[in-house]
Amino acid sequence: MINGEKRTAHPIRWAMVGGGQGSQIGYIHRSAALRDNTFQLVAGAFDIDPARGKAFGTSLGLEPQRCYDSYQEMFAAEALRVDGIQAVSIATPNGTHYAICKAALLAGLHVVCEKPLCFTVEEAVELRELAVSRKKIVGVTYGYAGHQLIEQARAMIANGELGDIRIVNMQFAHGFHSEAVEEANPATRWRVDPRFAGPSYVLGDVGTHPLYLSEVMLPEMKIESLMCTRQSFVKSRAPLEDNAYTLMRYTNGAMGFVWSSAVNAGSMHGQKIRVIGSRASLEWWDEHPNQLSFEIQGKPAQILERGMSYLHPSALLDDRIGGGHSEGLFEAWSNLYYRFAIAMDATDRDDQEQLSALRYPDIHAGVEGVRWVENCVRSADAGGVWVDYQ
Amino acid sequence: MINGEKRTAHPIRWAMVGGGQGSQIGYIHRSAALRDNTFQLVAGAFDIDPARGKAFGTSLGLEPQRCYDSYQEMFAAEALRVDGIQAVSIATPNGTHYAICKAALLAGLHVVCEKPLCFTVEEAVELRELAVSRKKIVGVTYGYAGHQLIEQARAMIANGELGDIRIVNMQFAHGFHSEAVEEANPATRWRVDPRFAGPSYVLGDVGTHPLYLSEVMLPEMKIESLMCTRQSFVKSRAPLEDNAYTLMRYTNGAMGFVWSSAVNAGSMHGQKIRVIGSRASLEWWDEHPNQLSFEIQGKPAQILERGMSYLHPSALLDDRIGGGHSEGLFEAWSNLYYRFAIAMDATDRDDQEQLSALRYPDIHAGVEGVRWVENCVRSADAGGVWVDYQ
Amino acid sequence: MINGEKRTAHPIRWAMVGGGQGSQIGYIHRSAALRDNTFQLVAGAFDIDPARGKAFGTSLGLEPQRCYDSYQEMFAAEALRVDGIQAVSIATPNGTHYAICKAALLAGLHVVCEKPLCFTVEEAVELRELAVSRKKIVGVTYGYAGHQLIEQARAMIANGELGDIRIVNMQFAHGFHSEAVEEANPATRWRVDPRFAGPSYVLGDVGTHPLYLSEVMLPEMKIESLMCTRQSFVKSRAPLEDNAYTLMRYTNGAMGFVWSSAVNAGSMHGQKIRVIGSRASLEWWDEHPNQLSFEIQGKPAQILERGMSYLHPSALLDDRIGGGHSEGLFEAWSNLYYRFAIAMDATDRDDQEQLSALRYPDIHAGVEGVRWVENCVRSADAGGVWVDYQ
Amino acid sequence: MINGEKRTAHPIRWAMVGGGQGSQIGYIHRSAALRDNTFQLVAGAFDIDPARGKAFGTSLGLEPQRCYDSYQEMFAAEALRVDGIQAVSIATPNGTHYAICKAALLAGLHVVCEKPLCFTVEEAVELRELAVSRKKIVGVTYGYAGHQLIEQARAMIANGELGDIRIVNMQFAHGFHSEAVEEANPATRWRVDPRFAGPSYVLGDVGTHPLYLSEVMLPEMKIESLMCTRQSFVKSRAPLEDNAYTLMRYTNGAMGFVWSSAVNAGSMHGQKIRVIGSRASLEWWDEHPNQLSFEIQGKPAQILERGMSYLHPSALLDDRIGGGHSEGLFEAWSNLYYRFAIAMDATDRDDQEQLSALRYPDIHAGVEGVRWVENCVRSADAGGVWVDYQ
Ligand SMILES: NC(=O)c1ccc[n+]([C@@H]2O[C@H](COP(=O)([O-])OP(=O)(O)OC[C@H]3O[C@@H](n4cnc5c(N)ncnc54)[C@H](O)[C@@H]3O)[C@@H](O)[C@H]2O)c1
Ligand SMILES: NC(=O)c1ccc[n+]([C@@H]2O[C@H](COP(=O)([O-])OP(=O)(O)OC[C@H]3O[C@@H](n4cnc5c(N)ncnc54)[C@H](O)[C@@H]3O)[C@@H](O)[C@H]2O)c1
Ligand SMILES: NC(=O)c1ccc[n+]([C@@H]2O[C@H](COP(=O)([O-])OP(=O)(O)OC[C@H]3O[C@@H](n4cnc5c(N)ncnc54)[C@H](O)[C@@H]3O)[C@@H](O)[C@H]2O)c1
Ligand SMILES: NC(=O)c1ccc[n+]([C@@H]2O[C@H](COP(=O)([O-])OP(=O)(O)OC[C@H]3O[C@@H](n4cnc5c(N)ncnc54)[C@H](O)[C@@H]3O)[C@@H](O)[C@H]2O)c1
Repeated sequence: MINGEKRTAHPIRWAMVGGGQGSQIGYIHRSAALRDNTFQLVAGAFDIDPARGKAFGTSLGLEPQRCYDSYQEMFAAEALRVDGIQAVSIATPNGTHYAICKAALLAGLHVVCEKPLCFTVEEAVELRELAVSRKKIVGVTYGYAGHQLIEQARAMIANGELGDIRIVNMQFAHGFHSEAVEEANPATRWRVDPRFAGPSYVLGDVGTHPLYLSEVMLPEMKIESLMCTRQSFVKSRAPLEDNAYTLMRYTNGAMGFVWSSAVNAGSMHGQKIRVIGSRASLEWWDEHPNQLSFEIQGKPAQILERGMSYLHPSALLDDRIGGGHSEGLFEAWSNLYYRFAIAMDATDRDDQEQLSALRYPDIHAGVEGVRWVENCVRSADAGGVWVDYQ
Repeated sequence: MINGEKRTAHPIRWAMVGGGQGSQIGYIHRSAALRDNTFQLVAGAFDIDPARGKAFGTSLGLEPQRCYDSYQEMFAAEALRVDGIQAVSIATPNGTHYAICKAALLAGLHVVCEKPLCFTVEEAVELRELAVSRKKIVGVTYGYAGHQLIEQARAMIANGELGDIRIVNMQFAHGFHSEAVEEANPATRWRVDPRFAGPSYVLGDVGTHPLYLSEVMLPEMKIESLMCTRQSFVKSRAPLEDNAYTLMRYTNGAMGFVWSSAVNAGSMHGQKIRVIGSRASLEWWDEHPNQLSFEIQGKPAQILERGMSYLHPSALLDDRIGGGHSEGLFEAWSNLYYRFAIAMDATDRDDQEQLSALRYPDIHAGVEGVRWVENCVRSADAGGVWVDYQ
Repeated sequence: MINGEKRTAHPIRWAMVGGGQGSQIGYIHRSAALRDNTFQLVAGAFDIDPARGKAFGTSLGLEPQRCYDSYQEMFAAEALRVDGIQAVSIATPNGTHYAICKAALLAGLHVVCEKPLCFTVEEAVELRELAVSRKKIVGVTYGYAGHQLIEQARAMIANGELGDIRIVNMQFAHGFHSEAVEEANPATRWRVDPRFAGPSYVLGDVGTHPLYLSEVMLPEMKIESLMCTRQSFVKSRAPLEDNAYTLMRYTNGAMGFVWSSAVNAGSMHGQKIRVIGSRASLEWWDEHPNQLSFEIQGKPAQILERGMSYLHPSALLDDRIGGGHSEGLFEAWSNLYYRFAIAMDATDRDDQEQLSALRYPDIHAGVEGVRWVENCVRSADAGGVWVDYQ
Repeated sequence: MINGEKRTAHPIRWAMVGGGQGSQIGYIHRSAALRDNTFQLVAGAFDIDPARGKAFGTSLGLEPQRCYDSYQEMFAAEALRVDGIQAVSIATPNGTHYAICKAALLAGLHVVCEKPLCFTVEEAVELRELAVSRKKIVGVTYGYAGHQLIEQARAMIANGELGDIRIVNMQFAHGFHSEAVEEANPATRWRVDPRFAGPSYVLGDVGTHPLYLSEVMLPEMKIESLMCTRQSFVKSRAPLEDNAYTLMRYTNGAMGFVWSSAVNAGSMHGQKIRVIGSRASLEWWDEHPNQLSFEIQGKPAQILERGMSYLHPSALLDDRIGGGHSEGLFEAWSNLYYRFAIAMDATDRDDQEQLSALRYPDIHAGVEGVRWVENCVRSADAGGVWVDYQ
């Protein structure tokens, strides 16, 4: 049966920091959060330019006085209201995440934070401890983690259908920044400036996406050591890389590989993950998200399709329409936000049972993404040597 | 620039008839209408079972007293409110569309009606005249008509990039009803019963979808004559067909072909359209909606991708996220509902300029779909002979 | 086990009529026949221009005196030699096939003839009777009939894996003649001139190919009636068509469809066949001949690959290299010629057992191709009406 | 114009060592060499088992006395004949290549040798010097190097259509040896035994194939340093690897990557190469060899098809049939053998002009393959460190 009618008891009062007019990622946050009546947008500090932010917020139907000049102001003012915000999403450039996330947690809010959570593992761990101690969730928006076929892959792997896992090949390699487009485009410019983007560009910006998918599919696997080499093919981007290769050894003897790139000329997204076991492989590609390739050695390859009753029950829970119809990134994000809502609600009620049944990119995923980038950069900056994973 | 923030001055007060708990198509109507704050769901007669409909409506957050037992009751009660509904969507089995649509227009409402609009051209024309005289719009939900690459195809054809149009090959041929699934499934049962489904099954249910895409892409082309042959491979479905072939001669000498099927075993959707000109062809397939194949004879085939700046401006207007990300059926429907909202608003303001610039499946599309089915059935029932298109 | 070493006891002494320097199809005949030492090229009347034909034959290593000015001369002279030719392949324009084939049979030769065998069923039946009475084989070169995955499809269908057969959709629709290329190219010119090409262009030239594949896959199915409509989009080709649609009713209630075209702009070959049963479908496409799609309704689609041990034994017999490697049209033709050699040898030895186990496009296939075109043309010329299949 | 009729003045008298009954690769050597009358098979030492080799040779039509017990015997006996062999192909297990190749060169023969040429660069250089001093060619059978679209890629890159080359991603990763199939299959067993296979398994067996394609496409690029990590997922294969990743830094700042694997479960071949420039990328895959993907950043991706007139002249030279028809591995090998014949003939005539215009995998390619494996193994065995390329 097609669910599609996701509802929680009461919508959560929700605000955004960033994601203003013309921003890349603001709309999908709103579209996903507001899709199923689980969140209600009541406030915002949408823009680095307060006036533009206010105009934008009111155009979205907010009360003007709840369109704030800054997140600090918003957190302070909302805390004084009985109907103040309960949760906030952070969709600002990377360099601000740590401070805003910390302020939000300290203000007693649940948080949805864009990746990367912050710049160092130290900061990430601090946020995690804060979240734990304050009993607040921090969701991180690895969008396709909400797609049903990722759940299907997880279930099949857990079920042993691939045999022993040997190899995990990942890539997120687009070509949109083959040239120095940042020279003309401010929204790209901060991405290649270490002050705002942090210690890496493509490793954090794209590589962490399929890495998180691998964490969902393969929850038991732990990286033991890795080596990374990174390049700045557009010279002016140095020290930040626009291309990187990472090789990983897992503690169980498996190998991992991640190709992160923004200079894969002519490629659209190229977010792919292929998990190879001793018996079979699974492959998924974000440009055709409704198909999952399942290849048992010595048998015909199979194409699994979203929405079909032969899938694992956990992969059918979130369908919004029957198989054959194309669900895409927006539905995956909506699924994530739905889970964020459930998690916030269950946390508030301290419902450990529901929480333990729930899977979403949480503060731990956020920490792990930062950790991976930190290790990659350490290896790359030492000349591409193998480093113990810390 | 990615738009994604579609807004009208005021959301339209909106209700649904049908589309209740567990219905196939109800969710996507709500998802599309409510996506961008252009509609506000305030009332409904969601279910043939009033109690279930009421429970469902309140679960969606409606006031209980605006969850009505029947559409008649709803139209009457809402007409008495200052804040009464302005528009209604009809998502009930085919056999009820005519009566509900007529009642809605008579109640002074704008209408979004599921296809087929009704069972005969006579009825369809009556609804059209009513809509025109009452100055109300009737939108019909040919979902993918809202997809950006359909606009791209239209623009390229208008621009002469295909040369003279010679051939239009269409299909919507899935396999979900290869067996008599209706025996166990009431939601399918009415589809193969002429009392509820009307004079055809797959011709109206699936064939009209790509037919409408062809009308969007090729607004000038007119069918002169057609021949149709239809089969009931699951015998108990007779006289309704589960498979049909239609051949068409257009007045300009071009040929058209439509394969409509519900017994294309193992196929997911298979909604495809290929337009062939003297110079080049275009092909689009709903299972990978973000790609459009453009094949100039004697040149390498090209894959056009949604969201890329080389597309026609009209194909970029409705983007909600950048190229490479997968937009699907839900975004196409949201685009349609956005255009329905604009059309309703412009009609109310009698803004002819805006109306003339707007393209959406309107009452004329509804009439043409009914007309095509009627001609197909006439040909098929005469043994598959060519009939003049009436 | 990979065979690849096909051998008969003695190579057959073989000649060609047509297929000269620069001809389209001559090389593949030689390549296929000579591949496995089953034929030996010893004579030829390669060209309408005797001098050019002689030069070409000697360049191929033939003795000059066995490069003849005409086929008449060749058949006469070779009959007088102890080591005279035993078989001949005819690769000339269509209009000459009947006369040459008849002369060859009368000269006591086995024949490989290009399609179409001739222009009328009457002629075809005459050739068949001659072949039968003279105990000679006539092979017809429907090239892909020799591909292993066609055998696989046949075996799976025979095995009931598709359930009852309902629909056979076929096409061979390329775009190479979207313009009047014949004006500049003599090798194309005869194809659109009824004097040389016969009563049809694309129906016979391309449509018969997938039709024969359907005969291999579905040996039991008989056409009961058909309707055909054909067009000359390049006007100067009339009365010969460059596009045609054929619908067929089989005696078992199944439906068939063939799209034949030379104006499918931008398409490469587009030879496809999809067989749909009550349980599953099979689909094969000549541009990726090593893959066969098997789609059971309600299960993941499967991609069967040539050369894999899960295939039916009859589909593994002819492999020349392991799975994963790409075999193409040349291997399929080589398989055909190998079977032609076996058939010639078995016929000479009157080995009925071997003959009955052998499958290849024989004189019956030749007759059926001509019959189909004749019926199509009869229907089309009557305005696209259904005609009983004669 | 379609060539297809490749001929040299006189066929070269040719023998084989190895490639006997049931061997994997013997047939394709014969099929390719004999395809176009450029070679004539006159002798052989086909098998490690002399009796089986003799039986096989005579079954191929050879004179029994020219089916030898060993290559030593063959080289000695043939040297005494006026019509003795002029060239020999070596299709035996890896461990024998060096000795046989050396013996053949010393016997004054041209050689076609399977890869890897030998086990160490030292041996390879010795063979090269011998070939140069004896004025003999050594061809190495990187089969797809003969495919027309590889020439197309080379021409486009040389022409600057990709901009500056930044990245070369390669893989040859099949799944046929996911299990320890060698336990039951002697033809696989030697491959994983260092005594017969040499210092590596998949690096040499599969990785060198796309590496050579990169050398053809990018003749100017030189590897500066590399790092390699290899695994034996089937434990009993250690120290030989069944999976390896190699990263390379080229002297011009570009990066290379090769994934070599025999445990990519469920994958057929997976030989792919993607060359990425500052402007565009090219991608080619051996399972669909007739298509080349050309992706200019910011433009629609293009699919180039073999046989089309828009290709570079050098990519059309070797066509055997028109575009749309599928040419595969056998045609690519035939092209290689044709070039080997030309090279042998031109070398014998000391025709430097013709030689300089000819491209084929020669002794230098052989040396470079061995060198790459040696460097990979050196890096891997040191723990996956970067090593200067020697
Ligand atoms: N999860 C994903 O798939 C995904 C995709 C794209 C971007 N992102 C992440 O989203 C974040 C935003 O990226 P983007 O591409 O939308 O950036 P953007 O530059 O397009 O938009 C940033 C927005 O934040 C606002 N802003 C900046 N500083 C602010 C502040 N101090 N207070 C309030 N508003 C502020 C800007 O005015 C702007 O509206 C980044 O961290 C990026 O890594 C994630
Ligand atoms: N546009 C498309 O792509 C598309 C896709 C599927 C269905 N449809 C169309 O949508 C319509 C509904 O199809 P479905 O598959 O959702 O059907 P369904 O049987 O799943 O649901 C029908 C809904 O209508 C309710 N209903 C029935 N009669 C009613 C009445 N008189 N008053 C109020 N509610 C009533 C039912 O209780 C149920 O909730 C049909 O016309 C169908 O052709 C269109
Ligand atoms: N089976 C297939 O897939 C396939 C594909 C292409 C063509 N064909 C068929 O092959 C036949 C030849 O087609 P083509 O495209 O190679 O034609 P073509 O015009 O390229 O070549 C025809 C050849 O026949 C020679 N010829 C003509 N009349 C002759 C005569 N009386 N005696 C001797 N030689 C003569 C010509 O000189 C020329 O060499 C046609 O019947 C065509 O339908 C079949
Ligand atoms: N170029 C390619 O794509 C490709 C593909 C497969 C194999 N190969 C190479 O081809 C070579 C052979 O591989 P294969 O898979 O065919 O092996 P195989 O084991 O299937 O066959 C080897 C053949 O060599 C014969 N032989 C062994 N030692 C001999 C000797 N001393 N004298 C004469 N004959 C001898 C064997 O009897 C057998 O017939 C290997 O070097 C392999 O790497 C290349």
